Amino acid sequence: MTTTSTPTTTPAAGGRRNDGRVPNQLRPVKIVPDYLKFAEGSVLIRVGDTRVLCAASIEDRVPGWMRGKGRGWVTAEYSMLPRAGTERSQREASRGSIGGRTHEIQRLIGRSLRGVVDMAKLGERTITLDCDVIQADGGTRTASITGAYVALARALNRFGMGHLLTGQVAAVSVGLVNGQTYLDLDYSEDSTAEVDFNVVMVNDDRLIEVQGTAEHGAFSRPQMDAMIDLAAAGIRQLFTLQQSAIDAPRGE
Amino acid sequence: MTTTSTPTTTPAAGGRRNDGRVPNQLRPVKIVPDYLKFAEGSVLIRVGDTRVLCAASIEDRVPGWMRGKGRGWVTAEYSMLPRAGTERSQREASRGSIGGRTHEIQRLIGRSLRGVVDMAKLGERTITLDCDVIQADGGTRTASITGAYVALARALNRFGMGHLLTGQVAAVSVGLVNGQTYLDLDYSEDSTAEVDFNVVMVNDDRLIEVQGTAEHGAFSRPQMDAMIDLAAAGIRQLFTLQQSAIDAPRGE
Amino acid sequence: MTTTSTPTTTPAAGGRRNDGRVPNQLRPVKIVPDYLKFAEGSVLIRVGDTRVLCAASIEDRVPGWMRGKGRGWVTAEYSMLPRAGTERSQREASRGSIGGRTHEIQRLIGRSLRGVVDMAKLGERTITLDCDVIQADGGTRTASITGAYVALARALNRFGMGHLLTGQVAAVSVGLVNGQTYLDLDYSEDSTAEVDFNVVMVNDDRLIEVQGTAEHGAFSRPQMDAMIDLAAAGIRQLFTLQQSAIDAPRGE
Amino acid sequence: MTTTSTPTTTPAAGGRRNDGRVPNQLRPVKIVPDYLKFAEGSVLIRVGDTRVLCAASIEDRVPGWMRGKGRGWVTAEYSMLPRAGTERSQREASRGSIGGRTHEIQRLIGRSLRGVVDMAKLGERTITLDCDVIQADGGTRTASITGAYVALARALNRFGMGHLLTGQVAAVSVGLVNGQTYLDLDYSEDSTAEVDFNVVMVNDDRLIEVQGTAEHGAFSRPQMDAMIDLAAAGIRQLFTLQQSAIDAPRGE
Amino acid sequence: MTTTSTPTTTPAAGGRRNDGRVPNQLRPVKIVPDYLKFAEGSVLIRVGDTRVLCAASIEDRVPGWMRGKGRGWVTAEYSMLPRAGTERSQREASRGSIGGRTHEIQRLIGRSLRGVVDMAKLGERTITLDCDVIQADGGTRTASITGAYVALARALNRFGMGHLLTGQVAAVSVGLVNGQTYLDLDYSEDSTAEVDFNVVMVNDDRLIEVQGTAEHGAFSRPQMDAMIDLAAAGIRQLFTLQQSAIDAPRGE
Amino acid sequence: MTTTSTPTTTPAAGGRRNDGRVPNQLRPVKIVPDYLKFAEGSVLIRVGDTRVLCAASIEDRVPGWMRGKGRGWVTAEYSMLPRAGTERSQREASRGSIGGRTHEIQRLIGRSLRGVVDMAKLGERTITLDCDVIQADGGTRTASITGAYVALARALNRFGMGHLLTGQVAAVSVGLVNGQTYLDLDYSEDSTAEVDFNVVMVNDDRLIEVQGTAEHGAFSRPQMDAMIDLAAAGIRQLFTLQQSAIDAPRGE
Repeated sequence: MTTTSTPTTTPAAGGRRNDGRVPNQLRPVKIVPDYLKFAEGSVLIRVGDTRVLCAASIEDRVPGWMRGKGRGWVTAEYSMLPRAGTERSQREASRGSIGGRTHEIQRLIGRSLRGVVDMAKLGERTITLDCDVIQADGGTRTASITGAYVALARALNRFGMGHLLTGQVAAVSVGLVNGQTYLDLDYSEDSTAEVDFNVVMVNDDRLIEVQGTAEHGAFSRPQMDAMIDLAAAGIRQLFTLQQSAIDAPRGE
Repeated sequence: MTTTSTPTTTPAAGGRRNDGRVPNQLRPVKIVPDYLKFAEGSVLIRVGDTRVLCAASIEDRVPGWMRGKGRGWVTAEYSMLPRAGTERSQREASRGSIGGRTHEIQRLIGRSLRGVVDMAKLGERTITLDCDVIQADGGTRTASITGAYVALARALNRFGMGHLLTGQVAAVSVGLVNGQTYLDLDYSEDSTAEVDFNVVMVNDDRLIEVQGTAEHGAFSRPQMDAMIDLAAAGIRQLFTLQQSAIDAPRGE
Repeated sequence: MTTTSTPTTTPAAGGRRNDGRVPNQLRPVKIVPDYLKFAEGSVLIRVGDTRVLCAASIEDRVPGWMRGKGRGWVTAEYSMLPRAGTERSQREASRGSIGGRTHEIQRLIGRSLRGVVDMAKLGERTITLDCDVIQADGGTRTASITGAYVALARALNRFGMGHLLTGQVAAVSVGLVNGQTYLDLDYSEDSTAEVDFNVVMVNDDRLIEVQGTAEHGAFSRPQMDAMIDLAAAGIRQLFTLQQSAIDAPRGE
Repeated sequence: MTTTSTPTTTPAAGGRRNDGRVPNQLRPVKIVPDYLKFAEGSVLIRVGDTRVLCAASIEDRVPGWMRGKGRGWVTAEYSMLPRAGTERSQREASRGSIGGRTHEIQRLIGRSLRGVVDMAKLGERTITLDCDVIQADGGTRTASITGAYVALARALNRFGMGHLLTGQVAAVSVGLVNGQTYLDLDYSEDSTAEVDFNVVMVNDDRLIEVQGTAEHGAFSRPQMDAMIDLAAAGIRQLFTLQQSAIDAPRGE
Repeated sequence: MTTTSTPTTTPAAGGRRNDGRVPNQLRPVKIVPDYLKFAEGSVLIRVGDTRVLCAASIEDRVPGWMRGKGRGWVTAEYSMLPRAGTERSQREASRGSIGGRTHEIQRLIGRSLRGVVDMAKLGERTITLDCDVIQADGGTRTASITGAYVALARALNRFGMGHLLTGQVAAVSVGLVNGQTYLDLDYSEDSTAEVDFNVVMVNDDRLIEVQGTAEHGAFSRPQMDAMIDLAAAGIRQLFTLQQSAIDAPRGE
Repeated sequence: MTTTSTPTTTPAAGGRRNDGRVPNQLRPVKIVPDYLKFAEGSVLIRVGDTRVLCAASIEDRVPGWMRGKGRGWVTAEYSMLPRAGTERSQREASRGSIGGRTHEIQRLIGRSLRGVVDMAKLGERTITLDCDVIQADGGTRTASITGAYVALARALNRFGMGHLLTGQVAAVSVGLVNGQTYLDLDYSEDSTAEVDFNVVMVNDDRLIEVQGTAEHGAFSRPQMDAMIDLAAAGIRQLFTLQQSAIDAPRGE
């Protein structure tokens, strides 16, 4: 059972993008639940040519610094397979250390998911969300968050712990490319964008993480507002796709 | 286009195995070619519940110690996703070093593939075979070899270098389980086997790697001969499945 | 010669904070230029009890991947002395690797400073901004950016390269603490804040980095707008303090 | 007290080797027991110009994952001194990690020795076999196994635990060199061999490890059988030499 | 409250040094107590242009190998900020390991301070002395010892544990430069010295560490005696300066 | 050909030591030259139960920072086999880093040997002295220096470069044990000594390294003088033993 969607949208001002999308259009999104046999919860999420395998593991223990407090912990790890992109990259295990970009991304994913889990009710358990990028064409960190939420929800539902979720979370990137505001940048857009925002939103329209970076130059407040509006609209579409995947019956 | 097969076999002596197979029966094998968009060659190979993503990357350079000799190099890297198995394992990148088992396996894969490539004709190029285990249910190293050969062959064929291959190579495990000789052990069989053999064979029936280990006790020469006979029969079936996947037209 | 200021502000709604500040008030800021004898540029910046030593080093070379392009590079490193805080922390050199938080912060500082340097005119030079936290009481990453800009500007001015700067950059944190919007959080506020924003702004009021994180719960768009307004007002005060320190004559 | 032997053999077909040996002839083997004063058991084994110092340490504890099971553990570590060979090699401690070849070899030694120890009767003890190559001229891993067994047996006998041994184990290499089947390859033979086998055998003629690798080309089943026959004959000679060293009285 | 001194001395034979000092003259020394707000004890020590921040942290635990013995432990860590010297040096955290020079120095500091603390009376506590070199112009290891003693004494006094000190310790370097015996070498002298001595002395004139190294050539016994005499005279002056800083009232 | 000696000495005041030696007596010293077949120079040195294998490797290159200066480099590495002592120690390669004690010792050995080599005449060559402790019973660092000098001298003589040596160097430890001044401490003495000195001397009686450490308490100048006198007398005996080993003809 898979959930696919290429949302039909009204063409926005700004003309067509390289891949034919209009500025406010998501790439086709497909979420395959229960992609792995052994994980408590898992999905393969595809966003255009980006594919991330998200696995939720629930373990009956917490890190040392949290023991005895009766609370749980949610953490994330992120990695990219060496041949996810157009050129082969070295494995971090071979280099002997995790790079700065990986650290930054996995901390973002962890914070985003912790934002919707009731840690006190979780008890002394750790939920690890492994996000492994099988193929990378831009937006891997936001696809990881969107997919990890589904893996997490399915894992919790499966063990009757769905009530630990305090909200639904999804994420998308937006950016300024040649002065245009684009939703859901692919790699070619991302690498030429003047500004790149990653927005993480809960289903009551409140935000839990906003990260905006001007790669060249800077951005004004009105430009920022327009980008966040665009992201919010995109995330609302993702909520619907997530929900279908969460509700799908078990069984690959 | 995918190539699947559950070879029908005549029931062998020794009765049924846990999953219903007869002793000399392979698990269902499925090889999905061109699984990745960006790699020069790639497959997803499934052997029962074991799934390995094999990617061949061709780069126009060789390691420092080989420069200026006009010869190429073929190497392999192997890794297991943290949630490939029934329990989550720590990433080697987090530990900061590659473990002994991983080293042992990736050296085996590399040697096996080098055995069928003409390094002199390859010129100063490196081919890296990345074998990433998505799901692990026994036989990941032999599935990696079998899949990596297809990824390699498709990559070479695509760039008109198919003639660099000097043979076809595939691998399978065999073992002694409760005194029975079984082909293609799954995880539950492997973890209780008295003896475990990994056999790598070329399509002229000659061997390029034989690794037999008695986990408990020891094995006699006749037992060894029976195991290698069984492996050879299994590998001949794999050759046929590989060839179909190699011949499949391009296009996911 | 040092530049100190406790900006006088009109009391805002929300009452007094722990240290007596009103919500929209910065902590006392002091920038000591030329703190180090050997560095091309350096400052010790104090923001309340937070103290960061910022050093700018200019070297006539660029990393390998940038060679031959005629462009320069600006990068940052961040570290905290083990006894900067209330408890001793382990050195990252002893642990053998740089942690995720450090990576995240030094990447932020580097991006922020690159945003105001003309890399093409810099030529094949690397400027490294070392930000070493001598004492930590909240806001170390924003103090690092604010101080590093002064160290950078003094270093460039000293060698007649002041025209490479395309703008002035400073940073501050804001947050939601018990529902109140506070400027420039100290450690006690930061550790109980519901939301924490780090804002990096250029002196034309445009932004080059916005990072907002809900540590508990989430934040609405109006809350976000209020926080960024507050940050912008604080940063404008920092611009004045930076300018005095940049204009101070040389001589320890 | 030392045990030396250059077994006299009937010249085999295939003519003389570089060092004057006939194809089925071992190099001179010398086993010096109790080479170290402090280790529970130790030997210096010389096989031609290869010299390995093997030490058996018995400790009253097991690794964390084995605690409370009432069983013991036998493990091995292998290392080569930097100036063991014709060129100086870098220390693995300087590189900061253990290489793949080392991992592969020490796992092989560990498995081989575990094959002849009754772990249940050992109780919660760890026996570590340190094999340090003082000088390397081929066959270091098989010399390590052969020597480690003697160190182990002497250590167990010394503390009245000789009955924990379930068999005697020794190892040798064989190979195809210029189409000839040679026993006990030295470095010059090993580096030009088409095929290299390491065979580990117990004294009831059963095998506990067989590792055959075609470095160039491949090998047929009859070639494999001939190599294993040759290895078995060589190992039987090693059993006699081991036994003399085990029986030697204590005292250097 | 700070303690500064440029001891007036009678000109010795040998003429003036680069910075105008006579051979047996210390550089100006300044010890700023309580430089850090959070550490149990701390000083910034300046010796000429060398500046070291010394912090004493007292923790209620000992390393694993000391537990249950009722004794304490005193240890030191030493590090140099990347821009302490005339050229930027790489951080040891970035390199992933602590270098040999750092290890050697921090072991010296630790031994020197342990020499004046009654470990038995300390109980199961660890005192860590962090010596971070802010600026380096020669003599950083001896300045670290001299400063660390003050940080330690102030920390112990503050918590009523001053009686644990069994003596006062300070250190200085001496050397042979162009055949002249010089006290307290600065960097330019140190880098051209034929011989370099670091002397650590207690206030009863007994020594607890003497390290002399001939960088070029060798030194005679009379030269050694002259150097140690000179060092002892310098250290006696440092004792007075230390005492003033120890006696200074609390309050930055 | 080996050189052995138990120097006969007149009993000194202070009575007999544990092993029957008088206070000013060396342990039996034996230097086996050409212990290794492949190294340019090598010895096994035994000092009582301490045994160190010293190998000199000459390579036609220098480290990067020395290239193009026409000068050579002499460096040392030191390591202890895991079962050199009474308890097994962890390998530094397994730990992933070299410890502080090892760093300190190998820097001492390197400096000592550099003190007697004319680096300018050596040309752009590196000589590495590997000192591997086979068995440890105190005095491993001084035995390493004494042995490494012989390995170095034999290597240089063999290649007609003996004139590069500017002196002969040897080393010994002395210490205060229960108030007695003892020459050449063994492990049991070293671990209870109040003071421990390592003295490195050239054959014109000048010193190139003196390292004295009070492990408990402190030492007076007269005590220091007595210890260095004792060391010098011991080193003069070592010079004779070294010379015999240097002059021994080649051939194991």
